Amino acid sequence: MTGALDPRGAWAADRCTIAKALDVVSTRSAFLILREAFYGTTRFDDFAARARISEPVAAARLRELVQEGLLEREDYREPRQRTRQRYRLTAKGADLFPALAALMQWGDRWLDNRGGPVELRHRDCGEPVAVELRCAAGHVIGTNELDLARRPRRR
Amino acid sequence: MTGALDPRGAWAADRCTIAKALDVVSTRSAFLILREAFYGTTRFDDFAARARISEPVAAARLRELVQEGLLEREDYREPRQRTRQRYRLTAKGADLFPALAALMQWGDRWLDNRGGPVELRHRDCGEPVAVELRCAAGHVIGTNELDLARRPRRR
Repeated sequence: MTGALDPRGAWAADRCTIAKALDVVSTRSAFLILREAFYGTTRFDDFAARARISEPVAAARLRELVQEGLLEREDYREPRQRTRQRYRLTAKGADLFPALAALMQWGDRWLDNRGGPVELRHRDCGEPVAVELRCAAGHVIGTNELDLARRPRRR
Repeated sequence: MTGALDPRGAWAADRCTIAKALDVVSTRSAFLILREAFYGTTRFDDFAARARISEPVAAARLRELVQEGLLEREDYREPRQRTRQRYRLTAKGADLFPALAALMQWGDRWLDNRGGPVELRHRDCGEPVAVELRCAAGHVIGTNELDLARRPRRR
């Protein structure tokens, strides 16, 4: 993986969007809250229990993820109950799923001798789903076939 | 995104490989060190400077990533210099690139009004590279077309 970024020393990662993404989702607990949102969790108590984090941590992470626009909070009320909040992924939050799927795929491959407990399948055809790097011409790309280039500035 | 994991309450994320992956790469600085390794950085001083982290933090992260088998450390010596160490990605480390590329793609789309500073291109054909979810039958999958299923245990 080389390219127009060489010599690397001449290039500063000022606007690096990996760093920016990690400023928004910066903790293990934030990733686990998002995992739970993808798995269909909506209620505060369930986030804390299922991500196995304390309620104060869950509350802090949910608040941050709402502030950053990845989740939206909604009041709801069941008959004879007090008002509660539920959380849903926004389009911005849902769009982070490939990053979580890539972490899962890596963990399945390298950290679990049984290949991981959860399988992603295409709802329509039932086939297993994988995260791929693919170019606009349709080639599947290995990391040793990548060039990095500075993107021309848009006006 | 629903499926065999419903009802979600009946299922525990004990062996979740997203959580395991985040136990291995658990900090912003670890992700940034890996970013630099992907960008071609090999020397200790360059990791600290380019990831913009302190030398003690860089040293701790490099040590952890070597322990976890994502980087390997190698001694080298230039003429009339003392022995130094350089770091390279292992196959396990290199295989994490799709997760970083997915974070970059999300950051480019949602956090940078100029579309991100770095572009990934296929070395052979020059076309831009994207992270995709795709099923074994070749369909590109949106996150709303996914089913989650418990993977049958291997023996």
